Amino acid sequence: MDIEKVNSMDFGEFVDVFGNVVERCPLIAAAVWSQRPFSDLQDLKQHFYAFIDALPQSGQEGILRCHPDLAGRELQLGTLTAESQREQSGAGLTSLGADERLRLAELNAQYRARFGFPFVLAARLSDRAAVPRELARRLHCPRAQELRTALGEVKKIARLRLADLLGIDPARL
Amino acid sequence: MDIEKVNSMDFGEFVDVFGNVVERCPLIAAAVWSQRPFSDLQDLKQHFYAFIDALPQSGQEGILRCHPDLAGRELQLGTLTAESQREQSGAGLTSLGADERLRLAELNAQYRARFGFPFVLAARLSDRAAVPRELARRLHCPRAQELRTALGEVKKIARLRLADLLGIDPARL
Repeated sequence: MDIEKVNSMDFGEFVDVFGNVVERCPLIAAAVWSQRPFSDLQDLKQHFYAFIDALPQSGQEGILRCHPDLAGRELQLGTLTAESQREQSGAGLTSLGADERLRLAELNAQYRARFGFPFVLAARLSDRAAVPRELARRLHCPRAQELRTALGEVKKIARLRLADLLGIDPARL
Repeated sequence: MDIEKVNSMDFGEFVDVFGNVVERCPLIAAAVWSQRPFSDLQDLKQHFYAFIDALPQSGQEGILRCHPDLAGRELQLGTLTAESQREQSGAGLTSLGADERLRLAELNAQYRARFGFPFVLAARLSDRAAVPRELARRLHCPRAQELRTALGEVKKIARLRLADLLGIDPARL
């Protein structure tokens, strides 16, 4: 998909296509549409990033709270978004043993209790061995630093999802 | 539900309960959770309003773009949220004749083309005769005024949905 195609979309189409670039936050795609026409695909991506950065801190935390746990209850229940299901599956999180699942559930719960938002990680850039290691590490970071790290992961996820939707190599974004 | 109950919710529960107070914008409920504890139910409502007011204009337009048309395609397809389905049904919009549906579809399309967001109205405070009349009237308002009017309707909808969820008379909010 090229930028002319993107710029030709009405807001209904745009939100249908890009509504889950940020997990369960169609509001963000719907807001980004206000910034068209986009000069190129990087410019489109930058407007997603800029909207996230411009939110008040409560809104940034709100974005994180719209994310599911990794290997959590929603994966068990089958209620993940299609994108999240693919990402968690690709990282091997759908085929954990009972011990690994329990360990992750405990770490996720500690993280949520400590920070007031769930642990967010670009699962496609990770794997089942690295996820609990990274979770255990970030659990001990200062809150302000952790909020920045988590929003950085939201942007990595957004970039990969955008590249998929546009049918291009993520390196071009 | 009293304010102690609301204040005792973790963010997962809170977003499950209040995630559609603003149509298809769970991000907003998820952000409002950052402001707990709430002093009372009015304070809870005010934090929803304040978050909407603090968004950049693109974000406010984004909220509107997450709303379905009244008596539109999503009603036909059965893909409305439960809240929206109830509200449109209560206003008699699910039992329009073919002529009325066509007239509304034309007005909705004109409105979307003019303003770049859909016509939003608190359907529970309206009815099938008033909706097209109000749509035709607002279609001719200046854009800045119309954005304010539409966000006012978002707040009316939010207030009524909150009252439902809390099990109280809207007059108490």
